Amino acid sequence: MTALPTGKVICAGLGPGDPELMSVKSWRALQSARHVAYFRKAGRAGQARAIVDGLLAEGVTEYPMEYPVTTEIHFSDPEYNRQLAAFYDQWADTLTEIARQDTVVVLCEGDPFLYGSFMHLHTRLAGRATVEIIPGITGMSGCWTATGQPITWGDDVLTVAMATLSEAELTKRIAETDALVVMKIGRNLPKLRRALAAAGRADDAWLVERGTMPAQTVQKLCDVTGEVPYFSIVLLHGTGRRP
Amino acid sequence: MTALPTGKVICAGLGPGDPELMSVKSWRALQSARHVAYFRKAGRAGQARAIVDGLLAEGVTEYPMEYPVTTEIHFSDPEYNRQLAAFYDQWADTLTEIARQDTVVVLCEGDPFLYGSFMHLHTRLAGRATVEIIPGITGMSGCWTATGQPITWGDDVLTVAMATLSEAELTKRIAETDALVVMKIGRNLPKLRRALAAAGRADDAWLVERGTMPAQTVQKLCDVTGEVPYFSIVLLHGTGRRP
Repeated sequence: MTALPTGKVICAGLGPGDPELMSVKSWRALQSARHVAYFRKAGRAGQARAIVDGLLAEGVTEYPMEYPVTTEIHFSDPEYNRQLAAFYDQWADTLTEIARQDTVVVLCEGDPFLYGSFMHLHTRLAGRATVEIIPGITGMSGCWTATGQPITWGDDVLTVAMATLSEAELTKRIAETDALVVMKIGRNLPKLRRALAAAGRADDAWLVERGTMPAQTVQKLCDVTGEVPYFSIVLLHGTGRRP
Repeated sequence: MTALPTGKVICAGLGPGDPELMSVKSWRALQSARHVAYFRKAGRAGQARAIVDGLLAEGVTEYPMEYPVTTEIHFSDPEYNRQLAAFYDQWADTLTEIARQDTVVVLCEGDPFLYGSFMHLHTRLAGRATVEIIPGITGMSGCWTATGQPITWGDDVLTVAMATLSEAELTKRIAETDALVVMKIGRNLPKLRRALAAAGRADDAWLVERGTMPAQTVQKLCDVTGEVPYFSIVLLHGTGRRP
């Protein structure tokens, strides 16, 4: 008979970037945590870690989980998958080990169950550790709030799509929705611009970078020149029913 | 020359229902508020007010904003629109008046700019009062977290649609998306069930009632019998790329 672990893995959604937009529940989990893990690109401080700066208890043990690959290899390459799978396997083992005796908090920007990296650990932790997910304000909520306009009204349909989709697929999605959120922009921006133009909605699009953070920028997409970050967001507001 | 008002209107997103899932920013705004307004159905305590129970300062002045109509008149009836427009006009006047001298916090369940009632006040307050929106964890995030499964993976497309749409429209939306959130269920459930079946996805759907609240229920939709609340949510999880 296996003894029940006394600890657990808490995935704390951190929200869109402003630390004050974290939930009270995540805030409390962080402040009492003795073990804190977070994803980051190798050689970077990490956005999740930056959000909690100044909030962690003294003497906390930190576990930076450095992606072996981000965009250097295309995700269609089997090597991309192999490296990431091994990375998630290893960290699932480490978190399981910690959770045998103590609680470890995994930091997740935005909302963990909406396109978050933690879900790849979540599947691997099933049956091995107690896992608790604390939802967060999504990055897209932070961005549409930053535009000062509601994203959806009445019976508007909202589509959330990645700019990694094909141009034809993006065009169709844009043409058929009322409100739109597009994520993973970066080098996909020229393709997304063509899709917006083909769907007749290029003039209505907004680009938000670093929503709710001090360096936040909010612009009409047609005014944007040059490159934009992968984690910026493009929005089309719905125009539905309103009394 | 008009004197600048010294107060403002803060719309505080409260999140999906568990008070601990409110942002630290909303929590602080609430605790220092001397004027608090919230929507409710006439004769009810109101869900937004229930979330903040025990959190308001002593001596706070409360402003219950009672909808003149909710589902008694269909939204296609001009009378529905006329009554609601007059209601929003009146409350925009009242909030503007309070904000001349003090700050008033308007409570909003979920995220204010995603299908929230506050947006109808927001348009009417423009140019008349300083307005600040605090985003919140959406009701749908609370619900997909409650299912214990991520809603989207990799490049999944997520569609958010209202069950008030026509059966044909719902069927098309369900057939063409990876992940789905349907809101405003209630009496639209039989129509939604037919649409899910026509799109071949009836067996994958989940129904969540009162997500993150003590009375939360999470069920496969095919196991649900009887009527369900208007504010329950139906979900289909995406099954996209994962290493």
